[in-house]
Amino acid sequence: MAILVVGSMAYDTVETPRERRERQLGGAATFFALAAGADAGVRAVAVVGDDFVESDLELLASRGVDLAGVERAVGPSFHWSGRYHDDFIERDTLATELGVFADFAPEVPAAWRASEYLFLANIHPSLQGHVLEMVPKPRLAVLDTMNLWIETTRDDLLAILPRIDVLMVNDSEARLLSGQRSLAAAAAAIKEMGPQRVVIKKGEHGALLFGRDSVLAVPAMILPDVVDPTGAGDSFAGGFMASVAAAGADRDSDDAPFREAMLSGTVTASYVPEAFSVEGLLNRNPDDHAKRLRTLRSMMIP
Amino acid sequence: MAILVVGSMAYDTVETPRERRERQLGGAATFFALAAGADAGVRAVAVVGDDFVESDLELLASRGVDLAGVERAVGPSFHWSGRYHDDFIERDTLATELGVFADFAPEVPAAWRASEYLFLANIHPSLQGHVLEMVPKPRLAVLDTMNLWIETTRDDLLAILPRIDVLMVNDSEARLLSGQRSLAAAAAAIKEMGPQRVVIKKGEHGALLFGRDSVLAVPAMILPDVVDPTGAGDSFAGGFMASVAAAGADRDSDDAPFREAMLSGTVTASYVPEAFSVEGLLNRNPDDHAKRLRTLRSMMIP
Repeated sequence: MAILVVGSMAYDTVETPRERRERQLGGAATFFALAAGADAGVRAVAVVGDDFVESDLELLASRGVDLAGVERAVGPSFHWSGRYHDDFIERDTLATELGVFADFAPEVPAAWRASEYLFLANIHPSLQGHVLEMVPKPRLAVLDTMNLWIETTRDDLLAILPRIDVLMVNDSEARLLSGQRSLAAAAAAIKEMGPQRVVIKKGEHGALLFGRDSVLAVPAMILPDVVDPTGAGDSFAGGFMASVAAAGADRDSDDAPFREAMLSGTVTASYVPEAFSVEGLLNRNPDDHAKRLRTLRSMMIP
Repeated sequence: MAILVVGSMAYDTVETPRERRERQLGGAATFFALAAGADAGVRAVAVVGDDFVESDLELLASRGVDLAGVERAVGPSFHWSGRYHDDFIERDTLATELGVFADFAPEVPAAWRASEYLFLANIHPSLQGHVLEMVPKPRLAVLDTMNLWIETTRDDLLAILPRIDVLMVNDSEARLLSGQRSLAAAAAAIKEMGPQRVVIKKGEHGALLFGRDSVLAVPAMILPDVVDPTGAGDSFAGGFMASVAAAGADRDSDDAPFREAMLSGTVTASYVPEAFSVEGLLNRNPDDHAKRLRTLRSMMIP
């Protein structure tokens, strides 16, 4: 069982109300891969610049991430810079320096084109479409996107939605894509565009699964403290996909493994805000994950 | 089993992105009482002005609300006017005309002073304290408050918190009162101030119960449309209290009846945004309530 992820590997400069960290390891594919964990067999397709620190790649490799699809190009790595507001949720993007990511043309190694699980992290939808041509028949394809693509490349996005199985977006993206204020109406409209299932992430308010036959609302874990929430959404996706893949679920499965995956994604994401960069993900252990899963279930039992 | 509510009966002028309604029936005690339902035996202590429409009082009476504690004073009734933003959540208060409410001195009829359940809706904490002197030993006292009182009459509020059993506030109020950003830390700090249990309302994101021994996160019902959310929070309280009272719970009960009451409050509140004023509450029926409760449970089962 292998999970292919296509997305960014980057450096983030993050300013919170309490602290500022320069050029720490980040990027959607990075968080996703570390979140999915060593057992998930994650294969990463990404591009990094000539400034990308070798020990960061070694860290990923040491955590079981196959980097055969990571191209090292000449030029600077993708660098994102942002400042969080006092609530540690709202944030202003201060700079988006694409660097080598501007010319990213994802190339999936031939041996990976039969990957069973595919996560298309947030990149230009025409690139996501290009990947779907190279990996035409995964058991399950999950796609993330963002307001920028919904607004500026809507047709490209609509063209690929029929070819994916789960759309995973946040609530404002779901509303923007569908033109519907109600999340129930938004999810129904998005399903009409292609995917059988829609996952709506709401940060500290949890996440919703609009499944094939059911709806599940999962609260976020209630954290004692927040240090840096950057990457929590992609880490949710990593935990979600690892769970779905471990269950061997595909698009024709019933909702049960997807409901279970929502809990796993929630617990996985809960480690991210506890520390800067990927530190929270690196420090967790299976016992603590199991303990948080029990806590989450106890918070949900009606 | 009787529930005593002390709070406002008012007229609201509400402007939404779609429509404007002038001087429609509102007020915390009004929503609470109608939400609790005819079987709850709600006793209302409030003040209305000489402009308060008799048929509005008759409506409440016809729904089983005992109005023996409603004083009719000379002058205008409390009038609130507000405008909702495009998200139907954020709102600007355009006018708060207290009218006769400015001199409200709640007087609990002698026969009601042994009421078993007490809901102190959002009024000046010194008035809430005055009520607690008149009704010293309810089985359960629940209190709502707001940012204004937390900021301007903090000492009055802190003086009465040891005498109530459940504080019911929204997330920003919980943070303001406790000085804690984390809702877990906020609830823990509030419990130190007196109440054994804290309910944190989050509107469309649901509600949290920080119980004696457990935490429960209940999502909001996912509504197909929103017309006017005014009164949903007080209606949640009405549904919550009716459920707690029907179970005969008191402060020493375990968390089970309070967890159940969270679901009942959530379903009850879900009727409010579907129509202006109290219309949504008036139009519901037990079969539909039971159906929504099943839907809510199905959304929560981990």
